[in-house]
Amino acid sequence: MSPSPPAEVGAPFSEIDTPALIVDLDAFERNLDTMAATVRKFGVRLRPHAKTHKSPFVAAQQIARGAVGVCCQKVAEAEILVAGGVTDVLVTNEVVGARKLARLASLAREARIGVCVDNSDVVEQISSAAEQAGVRIEVLVEVDVGAHRCGVKPGPAAAILARQISGSRFLSFGGLQAYHGSSQHLRTAEERRAAIASAADATSDTLRFLKDAGFDCATIGGAGTGTFELEGQSGIWNELQPGSYIFMDADYAKNAPDAGLRANQFEHALFVLAAVMSTSDQRAVIDAGHKAVSNDSGFPTVWNRRDLRYHRPSDEHGILESDSATCGLAVGEQVVLVPGHCDPTVNLYDWYVGVRDFGTPAARVEALWPVAARGAVT
Amino acid sequence: MSPSPPAEVGAPFSEIDTPALIVDLDAFERNLDTMAATVRKFGVRLRPHAKTHKSPFVAAQQIARGAVGVCCQKVAEAEILVAGGVTDVLVTNEVVGARKLARLASLAREARIGVCVDNSDVVEQISSAAEQAGVRIEVLVEVDVGAHRCGVKPGPAAAILARQISGSRFLSFGGLQAYHGSSQHLRTAEERRAAIASAADATSDTLRFLKDAGFDCATIGGAGTGTFELEGQSGIWNELQPGSYIFMDADYAKNAPDAGLRANQFEHALFVLAAVMSTSDQRAVIDAGHKAVSNDSGFPTVWNRRDLRYHRPSDEHGILESDSATCGLAVGEQVVLVPGHCDPTVNLYDWYVGVRDFGTPAARVEALWPVAARGAVT
Repeated sequence: MSPSPPAEVGAPFSEIDTPALIVDLDAFERNLDTMAATVRKFGVRLRPHAKTHKSPFVAAQQIARGAVGVCCQKVAEAEILVAGGVTDVLVTNEVVGARKLARLASLAREARIGVCVDNSDVVEQISSAAEQAGVRIEVLVEVDVGAHRCGVKPGPAAAILARQISGSRFLSFGGLQAYHGSSQHLRTAEERRAAIASAADATSDTLRFLKDAGFDCATIGGAGTGTFELEGQSGIWNELQPGSYIFMDADYAKNAPDAGLRANQFEHALFVLAAVMSTSDQRAVIDAGHKAVSNDSGFPTVWNRRDLRYHRPSDEHGILESDSATCGLAVGEQVVLVPGHCDPTVNLYDWYVGVRDFGTPAARVEALWPVAARGAVT
Repeated sequence: MSPSPPAEVGAPFSEIDTPALIVDLDAFERNLDTMAATVRKFGVRLRPHAKTHKSPFVAAQQIARGAVGVCCQKVAEAEILVAGGVTDVLVTNEVVGARKLARLASLAREARIGVCVDNSDVVEQISSAAEQAGVRIEVLVEVDVGAHRCGVKPGPAAAILARQISGSRFLSFGGLQAYHGSSQHLRTAEERRAAIASAADATSDTLRFLKDAGFDCATIGGAGTGTFELEGQSGIWNELQPGSYIFMDADYAKNAPDAGLRANQFEHALFVLAAVMSTSDQRAVIDAGHKAVSNDSGFPTVWNRRDLRYHRPSDEHGILESDSATCGLAVGEQVVLVPGHCDPTVNLYDWYVGVRDFGTPAARVEALWPVAARGAVT
C-alpha cells in the first residue's frame, strides 16, 4: 500500500520518476534557520506546525534548531510523530469521541501531549479518558480570535472552561490557543495587521477575565507563516505555530510583503516534478493532476517559466499553455511545479525526494523521507 | 505509513471513527448489477475504470459480473491491480520515460497489458521496452475526440501510428482509444448528445483512414459514467470504460437526466463520515476538510440534510451552516457527506469501510477493503 520511492539516493535529478514531491534541501534548511533566528529575536517559543510536513524527521530538524516541540491537527498525526521520537506534541484542535480520546490519553504515557477544547462536555470526556489511562493531559482553551471556526467567544467563556479543567485531577490548564487562521492569506499587509490587531484585542480581553479568575496562561499560542512576526512582536503571544514557512507555496507567494517587516524571507522549497506526456500545437499535457498537486488554493505555477500557465487539471493530467504559439516542451521533458497549497499536496505523497543543488546541473537526490503521517486523518 | 482501519468488521455504524470513507454495500452492488445489465444489452464489452476505486477487490467484483478487465491511468496502479489478481489491464493513458516503460513491459509478463499512444517516438520506446522484457504489448492509438487533452487529431494520423505499431515485432495494434472526458459533466442531455455525436463523427472519420490503410480495430474504447449509453448505442464503440458509476458523486448528481435514456439509474454509494467537533450559534465545524474530501469539483453535500451547506473548508475542518438560525447539530454527532468528486476523495484514504444496511438503524460494518493503489501516481 506504500509505493516505493520514485528515485534512489545519489541519482541525478533527471532520473527521478514523475510525478514526485521534491524538497530543495538548501532552501528548506535556510527556511528552518531563518525562522529559528527570527523567533529567537522575539524572545518567544517556536512550536512549528507538523500538519504541513507530517514527518518526524522534519520535526527533529526543527527541534534541533530550538523548537520546543511541534503541533499537529489529528490524534493519528500525533501518534506517528511520537512513534518517530517527538516528545512534545500539541494537538491544536478539538478532539471528540471516546475512541479518539482514549488514543490521545494513551499517547500521553509516552510524551507530553496537549489538546485544545471549546466545549464543557468534551473537557469532561478528556478527563475521563485521562483517568482511564492513568495520565495527566494538558488542555488549552481555544478562543475564536477572528477565524470563525472553532473556539469559544473572546471574553469570560475561557475562564469558565479553565476552572473546569483545573478542577480535574487528570487535566492541567495549559493556556490559550489563539490562532487567526483566515488572516494568513489576506493579501495586503494592512489587512493582515488589522486582523492580528483585532485578534490581539480579543486575546487580551480573554486574558483579563482569566487573570481575574486567578488563572495564568503558561502558553498563549497561535500564528502562522503569513502573520507570525505580528504575533511575535505583540507582547501577547508567547508560542508561535507556523508550518508552511519550511516549504512555502504559490498561495503564500501572492501575499504582498509588509514593508515594516523582513519581507519575502522564506523561499519556495517544495515542488512537484512532472513530465510532459503529450503535446499538440498550443499545449503540453503533464502527468500531474488532482492526485499529484492540490488545487484547493489555486493552480500550481511553473517554476522559472512565467510564460507557462497550468490549467484544466483532471485526475492525472494537467495542461500547460503558453503565451506564445507553442509552449516549446517536448514529450518526456521534466517540468517543475510550485504547488498552490503545500499541506494538502504533501498529503498526496508517500515520499519526499530531498534534492541537493536543486536548479543546477549538479542537482542530485540526497535523501528520501517518508511522509509518515500521510492520510492520518482520524 | 498505512493507518489502521477506522472500524472493526461487525461494528455498528455509530462506532466508526471519523473521518472515514464509507461504501453503502447495497447501493454499490446494485450499481454494479445495473451497469453489467445495461452494457450487456448494448452487446458491447465493459472494461470499468479502476482509477475510481484503486482496488483489486472491487475490480474482481466487476469482472465477476462480466467485465473483460479494467482500465487504469498509471503504471503504478496497473502493478497493484495485477499483484491483486487482475489479469487484463488497459492503461488508458500515455506512458513516457524509460523507467516507467520498463515497469510496464515487465508487467506484461504476468498479465495482458495494453497502453495508449499519441506520439511516434513513444511507440519506439515502448517497442524497445517490450523487446528488452521479452514481451509483446498491445498498443492503442488515442484520438482526441473533443476533450482536447491527449490524443492525435482525428483523421489520418492514427493510421500512421498504427502502421508503426504493426511494424514492431514486440507490439500489437489494439485499436483506438476515443474517450471524450470533458463531455461527462456537461449538464444538459442536449450538450452531452451533441458532444458524443461529434466524438462519433471524429471516431468514424479516423476508422475510415485506418480501414483504407488495412487496419481493423479490435477495440474502440471510451465512454464514462455521464455518457456511456450514448457510446453504447452508437454502433461505433465496442468497449465502454465508465468508472464513477459504482459510487457516484455530487458532481454527477448535477447532470440533468436524459429523457431518452434510463435516467438516474445509479445511486450514491460512497460517503465520507464526519463528526461535529465544535458548534456555535450558526455553525457546526466538522472534522472533514481538504485532506478528507476532495473539493476540486465542488463541495460535498450533506446526505439527507438539504438544509445544511458545507463551505469554507480548511485542511482538517469543514463548516456546516443551516438555513435556520441554528444547524441543530451537537458536538460528537455523525454527519454523512456525499463527496463532490469520488476519484480524488478515494485517493485520500487507505481503507474503504463497507457498510450493510446503510442509512438504517441496523447499519453495520461488513467489510474493510484497502484502497490498495492509493497514491500510485507514477
